Amino acid sequence: MTKVTSNALNRAFLHSSCRINAALEMIAGRWKPLILIHISENQNRFSLLKQAMPGISDQALGKQLKELEADRLVTKEIIPAIPVRVDYSLTEKGAALLPILQALAEWKDL
Amino acid sequence: MTKVTSNALNRAFLHSSCRINAALEMIAGRWKPLILIHISENQNRFSLLKQAMPGISDQALGKQLKELEADRLVTKEIIPAIPVRVDYSLTEKGAALLPILQALAEWKDL
Repeated sequence: MTKVTSNALNRAFLHSSCRINAALEMIAGRWKPLILIHISENQNRFSLLKQAMPGISDQALGKQLKELEADRLVTKEIIPAIPVRVDYSLTEKGAALLPILQALAEWKDL
Repeated sequence: MTKVTSNALNRAFLHSSCRINAALEMIAGRWKPLILIHISENQNRFSLLKQAMPGISDQALGKQLKELEADRLVTKEIIPAIPVRVDYSLTEKGAALLPILQALAEWKDL
């Protein structure tokens, strides 16, 4: 095995801390972890999410959902019913975050 | 086993999301994950941390270290040398965060 130079280790190390910061930014804020958890619990429509999170405004919820979609953590399916229905679901990446969020919750109590 | 009512589940669920947000707040910001990682890599003095993170000001590093100490993620040991020396180290709780940070870095790349 070639000896990994300390520079290479350093680069890998810095690269991972940038990824950590980018990941934290993706889920930062009061609502995003909560929205992901609610969608995973099948509260997967705007109205259901509003009910589950009485403190959030329509505007804030709409913005968070758009950002979560842009970051590929959530997908939106438009159901051609009357009135039209929009169902949200977690992507694979969104679902993969849940155990990390659970680990953070448990870590908080240490 | 007594049937866990949906209210109890809901309370446990909301309790864990508050803990997630509290945990995220503790480590949010551009520098805290990086400082914890550097201290874990034995860059455990102010001067060493400054060298390792050229972009951070003295003031910002001092503030972050104080907050990390207040949140019990880092401890400070004053070594009676001349000049006096201050060594930082991760608490058990600080060290327990590192695998979660690593998981977040890997999750980011999914």
